[in-house]
Amino acid sequence: MIGKDPFADENQAFAEKTVETEPIFTGKIISLQRDTVLLPNGKQAYREVVKHPGAVAVMVIQDDKMAVVEQYRKPLERSLVEIPAGKLDEGETPESAAMRELQEETGMKADHVTLVKSFYTSPGFADEIIHLYFADQCTKGEQQPDEDEFLQLQWLTLNEAKAFVEQGKIRDAKTVTAIYVWELYQLTGKLM
Amino acid sequence: MIGKDPFADENQAFAEKTVETEPIFTGKIISLQRDTVLLPNGKQAYREVVKHPGAVAVMVIQDDKMAVVEQYRKPLERSLVEIPAGKLDEGETPESAAMRELQEETGMKADHVTLVKSFYTSPGFADEIIHLYFADQCTKGEQQPDEDEFLQLQWLTLNEAKAFVEQGKIRDAKTVTAIYVWELYQLTGKLM
Repeated sequence: MIGKDPFADENQAFAEKTVETEPIFTGKIISLQRDTVLLPNGKQAYREVVKHPGAVAVMVIQDDKMAVVEQYRKPLERSLVEIPAGKLDEGETPESAAMRELQEETGMKADHVTLVKSFYTSPGFADEIIHLYFADQCTKGEQQPDEDEFLQLQWLTLNEAKAFVEQGKIRDAKTVTAIYVWELYQLTGKLM
Repeated sequence: MIGKDPFADENQAFAEKTVETEPIFTGKIISLQRDTVLLPNGKQAYREVVKHPGAVAVMVIQDDKMAVVEQYRKPLERSLVEIPAGKLDEGETPESAAMRELQEETGMKADHVTLVKSFYTSPGFADEIIHLYFADQCTKGEQQPDEDEFLQLQWLTLNEAKAFVEQGKIRDAKTVTAIYVWELYQLTGKLM
């Protein structure tokens, strides 16, 4: 993740002290290590840890429709429909990354974005954190995907988005979460 | 993930054909491989892929309170408060795993659980899928955590759970999602 978790120091219940770290792989996006840890009962155990630079995702809503992009997800051997998202570049703030990914994947240019929630995707084996942003004041431009990125943009109403979840087209944590946030926003007028 | 994704065949937009798979690591919970793929434009790229057996998580609500457990998450070097969850054992159905994890981590015994949603946690680099279940008819018993698992059980009202999110104690995708599902359930009477 980017920077230190501000809540790390005060949340140390059942802390596992690292006895040894074995680096296993350093890749383009993730790296992997195996830690030997000392458990609270004095025994040792292994922990497999994937390191990830952190990511952003953006709920962009215009005329009661939310932008989603369909792209192939190699780990699943299928394509998924997801909200615009991407990993943080080195030295980039989550807010800048959110505006950059939004423009690259949808062509929409946001003057500002609002942080909805930050969450860890798989805390059992990975340190990936996703910062989920909301944007509703945008101007239109051209998509500029990365060189090895192929995606198709669509705009969905809330009911269409919920139908996509039922049909299994939408099936990832950040997009399912965004749809719940959107539904609550429509019901309560509050971004929660 | 467990079994084949039933939606895989119909969602093949921008498919990336595997040219070569390089196995890198096989661990206790995850394994890692690097695939060389052929992109839709004919060029090649690498994809780092983490394989995971799949997981379950359970929203268990009794007397308007939801069970959460605090445990240390080595990848984050901090503890998190999360709903009961765990990985699927070999040959186990998600439903059985949900009832087993619920009993191990909270002591609660459910006669049946209802599937709320299944979602991929990190589709960019991992195939992990989490099946989120709901249970509200349970009987009480004793916690039986795994040998290398140390956790503390609490029961939170919806407002307490939302405060935990604000305070950064709750900060993982499945628990944040569960809290949205619970809030929508209270507002609409429907499990969505």
